[in-house]
Amino acid sequence: MTAQADRRYVLGLDYGTNSVRAVVVSADDGSEIAEAVTEYPSGEAGILLDPADPNLARQNPADYLDGFFACTGEAIKQAAKTDPQFDAKRVIGIGVDTTGSTPLPVDREGQPLAVNPRFRNDPAAQAWLWKDHTSYAEAAEITEKAGKLRPQYLGKCGGVYSSEWFWSKILHCRRSAPRVFDAAFSWVEAADFVPAFLTGSLDPRTMKRGICPAGHKAMYNDAWGGLPDKEFLAAVDPALADLRDRLYDRALTSDQPAGKLTREAADKAGLPAGIPVCVGTFDAHAGGVGAGIRPGVLVKIIGTSTCDMMIAKPDGEVADVPGLCGIVPGSIVPSYLGLEAGQSAVGDIFNWFVGQFCRKAYGSDAAAHEALTKEAAELKPGASGLVALDWNNGNRTILVDPLLTGLLVGQTLHTRPAEVYRALIEGTAFGALTIINRFEEYGVKVNEIVNCGGIAEKNPLVMQIYADVTGRPMKISRASQTCALGAAIYAAVAGGAYANVPAAQAKMTGTKPRVFEPKAEAVKTYRQLYEIYQMLHDAFGTRQWQSSLYEVMKQLIRIREQSRRS
Amino acid sequence: MTAQADRRYVLGLDYGTNSVRAVVVSADDGSEIAEAVTEYPSGEAGILLDPADPNLARQNPADYLDGFFACTGEAIKQAAKTDPQFDAKRVIGIGVDTTGSTPLPVDREGQPLAVNPRFRNDPAAQAWLWKDHTSYAEAAEITEKAGKLRPQYLGKCGGVYSSEWFWSKILHCRRSAPRVFDAAFSWVEAADFVPAFLTGSLDPRTMKRGICPAGHKAMYNDAWGGLPDKEFLAAVDPALADLRDRLYDRALTSDQPAGKLTREAADKAGLPAGIPVCVGTFDAHAGGVGAGIRPGVLVKIIGTSTCDMMIAKPDGEVADVPGLCGIVPGSIVPSYLGLEAGQSAVGDIFNWFVGQFCRKAYGSDAAAHEALTKEAAELKPGASGLVALDWNNGNRTILVDPLLTGLLVGQTLHTRPAEVYRALIEGTAFGALTIINRFEEYGVKVNEIVNCGGIAEKNPLVMQIYADVTGRPMKISRASQTCALGAAIYAAVAGGAYANVPAAQAKMTGTKPRVFEPKAEAVKTYRQLYEIYQMLHDAFGTRQWQSSLYEVMKQLIRIREQSRRS
Repeated sequence: MTAQADRRYVLGLDYGTNSVRAVVVSADDGSEIAEAVTEYPSGEAGILLDPADPNLARQNPADYLDGFFACTGEAIKQAAKTDPQFDAKRVIGIGVDTTGSTPLPVDREGQPLAVNPRFRNDPAAQAWLWKDHTSYAEAAEITEKAGKLRPQYLGKCGGVYSSEWFWSKILHCRRSAPRVFDAAFSWVEAADFVPAFLTGSLDPRTMKRGICPAGHKAMYNDAWGGLPDKEFLAAVDPALADLRDRLYDRALTSDQPAGKLTREAADKAGLPAGIPVCVGTFDAHAGGVGAGIRPGVLVKIIGTSTCDMMIAKPDGEVADVPGLCGIVPGSIVPSYLGLEAGQSAVGDIFNWFVGQFCRKAYGSDAAAHEALTKEAAELKPGASGLVALDWNNGNRTILVDPLLTGLLVGQTLHTRPAEVYRALIEGTAFGALTIINRFEEYGVKVNEIVNCGGIAEKNPLVMQIYADVTGRPMKISRASQTCALGAAIYAAVAGGAYANVPAAQAKMTGTKPRVFEPKAEAVKTYRQLYEIYQMLHDAFGTRQWQSSLYEVMKQLIRIREQSRRS
Repeated sequence: MTAQADRRYVLGLDYGTNSVRAVVVSADDGSEIAEAVTEYPSGEAGILLDPADPNLARQNPADYLDGFFACTGEAIKQAAKTDPQFDAKRVIGIGVDTTGSTPLPVDREGQPLAVNPRFRNDPAAQAWLWKDHTSYAEAAEITEKAGKLRPQYLGKCGGVYSSEWFWSKILHCRRSAPRVFDAAFSWVEAADFVPAFLTGSLDPRTMKRGICPAGHKAMYNDAWGGLPDKEFLAAVDPALADLRDRLYDRALTSDQPAGKLTREAADKAGLPAGIPVCVGTFDAHAGGVGAGIRPGVLVKIIGTSTCDMMIAKPDGEVADVPGLCGIVPGSIVPSYLGLEAGQSAVGDIFNWFVGQFCRKAYGSDAAAHEALTKEAAELKPGASGLVALDWNNGNRTILVDPLLTGLLVGQTLHTRPAEVYRALIEGTAFGALTIINRFEEYGVKVNEIVNCGGIAEKNPLVMQIYADVTGRPMKISRASQTCALGAAIYAAVAGGAYANVPAAQAKMTGTKPRVFEPKAEAVKTYRQLYEIYQMLHDAFGTRQWQSSLYEVMKQLIRIREQSRRS
């Protein structure tokens, strides 16, 4: 127990898709002291949409700043209530994570074009939210060019450059909104923008940029001198080559300070001025840290989609893993390679099914989830005869293909909603297993799995199915706000409480006592079902596959009968 | 107009899956005078189920007899009310159709074992309803043996002997319920059992048997001397060869009387004793007659499943069509070949979806069907991005494979119930087109399509989609109870009102004025979607297919975007 006088606290800021969350954490043991959430006021649940284009998703950067003060102020107030020893003066640092890639155009002073009255209502001048898919044509173009000219760039981002990422979005802005593109002096990830604002260091030429956004989304790598070279960028579009001069040469890990909290921001938030604000990172990467990531530990952040994070010693033994969303030195834990994979939809699939097909029957989404979960839990693996592909929102890892859709096979005239619900959960579990296998096929051994996020916290059925499908125990991160905790851990290092991130993790992270162990009988059945999933996965998802699916329905029926008899 | 004194009436009995219907029809013009329906009281909506085995579906034969008196009595009463000229004495004959193959085991006197207290609760002693699929292994065995020893048998039933049929079911009974098999003196189709009961001629050795059940389900053909020969049956199982001696040597067309209505039954039903009761037939074959079938006219009876009926001159020019449920001389119209094809589930698929996923939201199945139909009608072809295989109950024609299941592909996070509902309708339409194509590939030209049954009557959306998918006009039979009308037409011939079935059809059948014409734009889109359906059909349904499905999801997305933009 730390003596009262020595107690130190850190603040973790977690910018999500619809809201920002501030969490006050004990720097000593990682325990959560207080938490506050502020919904973004703009658009629909914080997202600026275009009814004519379902691919468009933007955010108002002003929401980030207003949100900071609102939820930080509230969290500080709460902390004082719940912890008598708390004192805002004892907050030693701030860590920030955001969604990404969420770049926004800024002027020469680093002010978002969105706050300029000339551009206030122009969607192109806002922050281009991670799930904005307007740039799919530009992504294909960049992938194609890189494949020809700089295959090494693609090697570090899984072989395909995504429409969700930095250069695709900027190129689409140049093509579709040249007025905004021309007015932009530079472009900044939201993850970099927030710390820059808080530390008064908005100048785009000197603003500190994080290695996580840079490496995972902007093809930055020290091995080739930072951002993609000008020759390559010029081959894509000369304007991108010009822009490179107004971006950055070096990106930093998040245990580094982006600067010190300005007096103005400190006073407004009720915090001590001058405390370090860490270089920004992405939510999933912070989540990896908050869940205690270390070599051999896969951290799964399970929410509407998943992020599957690993780290590995950067000793050159990690091959480029096809289908990953990035292999970036220091993007999670400094001096380790950060590896990111993920599924484009997990909770979103369950929510879709419940919202469209079950909500009205049960009165509410929550009641439907609860009832279906209960009923699905009573079903034996394989007994429904169903298998689903988890591609309702495309496939991020390992196929990196947004032009994929959902599939359900095995329906009879008796198939019930709970059976479909369970099949959808199983489908996401098969998707998760495919990612684990991909890691291992390329030499990244998965010895342990720690889950976090709402679904991992709240749905034991999902966790048990994941254990049974993967044949591995599922642990759950101790912290309920694992991403914010990760941001706070960076702050604890930057604030001097620990020498480095692993040391901080050793004290500040952990898992819950309940571990979901795989059950032998279920593992056996799921092994058979996974073979069917793999067949469908390859048949619909890969170019080279060429075979027969005649056995799929037959085998599902055999498994169904086996399971029902047993 | 027939003078009052000459007016004649006939009674058509139509035994469905859940209820029996009696229709009083004018023998002069086929107009319906009165109708009554009696639900079977046993099981779930008349079907005895086994929660452990979704393949099992049986019926209590007592329901057939009780149902006869209940609904006939009621129909006679109604007829007297609606037609002042009606007099039960003017009823000149009774025709009976039932589902099939629905065989039941009987004792030496022709009494169903199910009424024997020893077997009352034994599912194997009941009537084995057409859609009982417990016998799939036996069906495969019979198909294999016939393929080797008697290929001609298979040629007349589409190349595959089905689990829904007579010998498969009996063989499965022998294997799985030997006590019942041993106690059964003979087996009788429900279609033969009801007329035998009404005419007091239950003795299995002399009971009149219909050519329709015999030829379509029991491999009966005069060309090879009736039922399959004993040598062949013994090769399948010696017990079947023994049973052959206790079955029948000759089967008759349904314009022939099975006998005369007994005094006891006549009194109980309020009918004249001694009128002819026709040899029984199946509902779909009667439906063909009631819809005015003639060479070149495809009659589709669309209900829970479909039957697709054609007739052809028996001049030896009709090849054996693979995948058909039978090519049987006289099974529809005497002296023409009767050709039967069908889809194992159509309305059943819509009802399944509504019952499981939409009922509660809309308060009732009927309200859900209505709301979804309305919403689905507003969707453009291809706009959902979905394609479904219509195999929730296996595939009857052209694959003849019960070990197939449903499949839905193209789901996103926005897919709505009405989109799925429409995709399921489209899936059944693609299945219908596959059957039409199969007829024509083997030289049976389809010049005209007449639809009947509840769905054809009540759902213009289904009819329009069928027109658009097939690119052919869809006509609807004038009679609302086309199967019962067909049974009544046989009775009109047996009762002496007409010389033969075509003569009776000329007076008693017709189509409604409204014809559903294909719309060019929709036809074009459905042609693209049908290519995808065919790919999935062949990939999952045929052994020889070997190719790639990589383009399926991509193409569905392209069609979706095209359709939404247009």
